[in-house]
Amino acid sequence: MIKNITGKKDFIENLRGKSATLMIALSNTKTANIEGITQAGIPSMLHLTPTLDSEFVALGEVRSLGQIAETPKGVPTPALITRAIHLLHPFKNIEFLDLGLAVKPKIDYFKIHDFGIFPSGRIDEDAKIKASEVFQKGVEFGQNYTTKNNYIILGESVPSGTTTATATTLALGYDCKNKFSSSFKNVPNSIRETTIAKALSNIKEGDEIFDILGRVSDNMLIFNAGFILGLNNRIPLILAGGTQMACVLMVANKILEVMDGVIETSNLALCTTKWVYEDKNSDILGLLEMLNFSLNAYWADFDFSLSHHPALKLYDEGEAKEGVGAGGALVYGLLNGVTKENITRKVEGFLG
Amino acid sequence: MIKNITGKKDFIENLRGKSATLMIALSNTKTANIEGITQAGIPSMLHLTPTLDSEFVALGEVRSLGQIAETPKGVPTPALITRAIHLLHPFKNIEFLDLGLAVKPKIDYFKIHDFGIFPSGRIDEDAKIKASEVFQKGVEFGQNYTTKNNYIILGESVPSGTTTATATTLALGYDCKNKFSSSFKNVPNSIRETTIAKALSNIKEGDEIFDILGRVSDNMLIFNAGFILGLNNRIPLILAGGTQMACVLMVANKILEVMDGVIETSNLALCTTKWVYEDKNSDILGLLEMLNFSLNAYWADFDFSLSHHPALKLYDEGEAKEGVGAGGALVYGLLNGVTKENITRKVEGFLG
Repeated sequence: MIKNITGKKDFIENLRGKSATLMIALSNTKTANIEGITQAGIPSMLHLTPTLDSEFVALGEVRSLGQIAETPKGVPTPALITRAIHLLHPFKNIEFLDLGLAVKPKIDYFKIHDFGIFPSGRIDEDAKIKASEVFQKGVEFGQNYTTKNNYIILGESVPSGTTTATATTLALGYDCKNKFSSSFKNVPNSIRETTIAKALSNIKEGDEIFDILGRVSDNMLIFNAGFILGLNNRIPLILAGGTQMACVLMVANKILEVMDGVIETSNLALCTTKWVYEDKNSDILGLLEMLNFSLNAYWADFDFSLSHHPALKLYDEGEAKEGVGAGGALVYGLLNGVTKENITRKVEGFLG
Repeated sequence: MIKNITGKKDFIENLRGKSATLMIALSNTKTANIEGITQAGIPSMLHLTPTLDSEFVALGEVRSLGQIAETPKGVPTPALITRAIHLLHPFKNIEFLDLGLAVKPKIDYFKIHDFGIFPSGRIDEDAKIKASEVFQKGVEFGQNYTTKNNYIILGESVPSGTTTATATTLALGYDCKNKFSSSFKNVPNSIRETTIAKALSNIKEGDEIFDILGRVSDNMLIFNAGFILGLNNRIPLILAGGTQMACVLMVANKILEVMDGVIETSNLALCTTKWVYEDKNSDILGLLEMLNFSLNAYWADFDFSLSHHPALKLYDEGEAKEGVGAGGALVYGLLNGVTKENITRKVEGFLG
């Protein structure tokens, strides 16, 4: 079942049976190097997470390291969910956006869009992103992108991305301190809060929106805000993610405010997981309600209650929630007749 | 299993795995207001049946009334079957033809073709349809229609449509009085016969074919006869229905006779349900044999023998037989690997 967070079901029902391109935005921010800030990956190998995620989604194997990305507690990457859907009811096309990768994926044949963007810096030390340039690259990509498929599902893999997302929205003046998710069940607020406080302290009097984004944000957030505005409702677009994708929308929203612009959003939606929707430490609905435009938003009613695998039960306990397009992939699967049982067995199969 | 009524299996086998647009023709005729003439819907709310059917097929919920259309005996609308197939193996596209609806469906995003056609009158009082105009709209729609999909499945929802179909074919001179189906098991012949007799008595000496159709027919029958002739074998078309769709063919056939025209029908077929095929009160084969052209016609070997749900058993007892594209939808499902078991469970799921 696909359930509404906001809006009506018509948008998503109209995509039933239609063909989709899965697009995964990959990026590294050195913010992930701050010890204990994220569990989205293998400690000391965190920068490899987006690379490994892309390899696993596309190929079903990892090439840039001997094992799949998992947390120290053994929670496997949500890339497994996205891959499972791709095996059960394939996406018509998978493309990757290299928005500053430390290590390029070892993938042939699949399209990897290269924008000449480099990993961003630590936000506690000023991320030093050329934000206006990254945004403009997103706008141009959106303006020029064409596909034979009916819609796009856009996911992301950015370790420590919820920290940069929280800092970004706070810096932009949104009142949303406790509305953000994290890959942790017990969010390590002290490290996060210190990092975010330091990031915000880097903002200078007179900084304009792109100055602020350049200091406290990440490439994925900035580029995709541009992508949405450049695409301009021309192709149905599902943002597949939780609070980070909400932040992309909030960045786009603030840029529109500053530029006194408006956007048509009838072809724009957000799809996330049950774990994000039900998360008590974040508030996806609260974030979406801060937007000046209306939005269709959905969550996939899928969990691992049919599994006894201890690593997967950790999802249901809140240890991992979203990423690598998992929420959008689940919605895509459910739209196309894939069952909870099938998904569960397929993901279990990856774990042996 | 898909079984032949007429023709060979080659046409339908060639559509296995191909993409389909489901098109549902929706229309109201005030003939349905005659008490006891149909059980296709909720008494006093009969005019809502096509509206509710379209909402349920597209969205899985009804918006224009608090409940799905069902007969006074509790037989649920065949829209449930069409929706079940859409969930199990989605149609690539769903579009609706508004051929005179009393109440517009509350549906966004899905294409609803509007032809400026209004509900038709009671045939016992002269339906007063501008038949030539409605026919011409159908022809033009057929001539101009384009799709990226491989074929079209055309269903209908027209309460009291078997009565208008019977009147239409009799008025056109076909000898087919007892060959027509009805949504009743024990067809209320007295009310139907009185209505049809009155309808036929409205025909005047010197009436030409469109005059006759204007008095005794309905918009769906006339428009779709035009649609078939306008489409002219250019895109494979499955008429998804029973005796009403046979009547559409008989109208087209008679118009061709009058105009001294011919039509290529290699890309035209009719698909219906087992309940229509086996119905003892009607004769779909007999109707198709009256056509001057050859036709591929099939029935889907599906019934509710795997179900114990009393409302569904009524189908197997002949209380409901076809509608909202159910026969064509079942054929589409069977062509694409959907099983009888899956369909049964999905339909049962709607009933709780």
